[in-house]
Amino acid sequence: MPFVEVNITVGATKSQKALLVEGITDLLVNVLNKNPSSTQVVIKEVGTENWGISGRSVKKLREEGKTANISKT
Amino acid sequence: MPFVEVNITVGATKSQKALLVEGITDLLVNVLNKNPSSTQVVIKEVGTENWGISGRSVKKLREEGKTANISKT
Amino acid sequence: MPFVEVNITVGATKSQKALLVEGITDLLVNVLNKNPSSTQVVIKEVGTENWGISGRSVKKLREEGKTANISKT
Amino acid sequence: MPFVEVNITVGATKSQKALLVEGITDLLVNVLNKNPSSTQVVIKEVGTENWGISGRSVKKLREEGKTANISKT
Amino acid sequence: MPFVEVNITVGATKSQKALLVEGITDLLVNVLNKNPSSTQVVIKEVGTENWGISGRSVKKLREEGKTANISKT
Amino acid sequence: MPFVEVNITVGATKSQKALLVEGITDLLVNVLNKNPSSTQVVIKEVGTENWGISGRSVKKLREEGKTANISKT
Repeated sequence: MPFVEVNITVGATKSQKALLVEGITDLLVNVLNKNPSSTQVVIKEVGTENWGISGRSVKKLREEGKTANISKT
Repeated sequence: MPFVEVNITVGATKSQKALLVEGITDLLVNVLNKNPSSTQVVIKEVGTENWGISGRSVKKLREEGKTANISKT
Repeated sequence: MPFVEVNITVGATKSQKALLVEGITDLLVNVLNKNPSSTQVVIKEVGTENWGISGRSVKKLREEGKTANISKT
Repeated sequence: MPFVEVNITVGATKSQKALLVEGITDLLVNVLNKNPSSTQVVIKEVGTENWGISGRSVKKLREEGKTANISKT
Repeated sequence: MPFVEVNITVGATKSQKALLVEGITDLLVNVLNKNPSSTQVVIKEVGTENWGISGRSVKKLREEGKTANISKT
Repeated sequence: MPFVEVNITVGATKSQKALLVEGITDLLVNVLNKNPSSTQVVIKEVGTENWGISGRSVKKLREEGKTANISKT
């Protein structure tokens, strides 16, 4: 029954996304004892110019080399 | 006032999407007596590699012909 | 597979909510040919002081009898 | 800590999006005394054929010149 | 930067929720190399009468003992 | 047409919430030239035990006095 929405910036590879879906599903199944077939995980990728932190877009923060303080990638 | 977010995998046609918007709006207007002009329905289409069920992407499940158990389409 | 989030203000009755869940599921099954058992509809009820239209809370608009212009209820 | 999701139809310019991110962050920082570095604003752009008002897509409403009643843009 | 929204029905214990937050954060940090301090996980608990599967509320499905087919809990 | 979902932890006062709704609506009207009557802002308040940062709940971080690094409130 659980529905998980994962919001990330664009750039994850197919295998990274597969690992997220698998890992989050496993967690919900193990921790909450949910049925995997009704556990859904959706990844929503957002452009870096559409994601703001500290009032500025991630795109801009990355251009200025300032994202290191906020996010490694 | 209602706001409805419909999450589906990509692939719906324009006329299918129009039917969803019309049908859901009619329901809210009829059941909850809402004003149609303030009833909003948004369809968010998600790539099949970004939607996971049972810990695997719909893309993979479809390639293996296993989605029949989970979803007809 | 579809996941629908219905945002409304608090106050719907149990039977109204049951009609919404049933009606929206039927629509998705009929229009998109989805499997009903993987079609999920979640209703999120929001307090009227937490929902704003035209820059003011629905609570306030209702107190002033102004919501008639925006929503019947 | 706040996370704000702004749903709009496609068409905003980069500078408009930057103004939204900056303005909403400033508001949260000033009104709620939140730390800007943990305040995130995400803009989700939706195609006009995927956004319905009054039971019809914004795309159709605009083609018929009827959106003026509902939204200036 | 990631923001994860976990939708579940009410009933999870504090320690279960702590395990979900910890596990999902670890996944995002390990798989996507994200900074943990900007990784946020929010759990939204929904009443069983507000969550529908197969066109009926989880509350009803559980009363009829039919949820076993859909979810273990 | 815009729909904005503001996720915050519980604890904001009525007047703070009114300021958020008013300020965000003004921004959307001014920056995107949207009609205020179709601009909706919804505030979703989340319990501190349901919001995780750095893999731990805000509730716990606050008890340990560690939230100062992450959020002022």
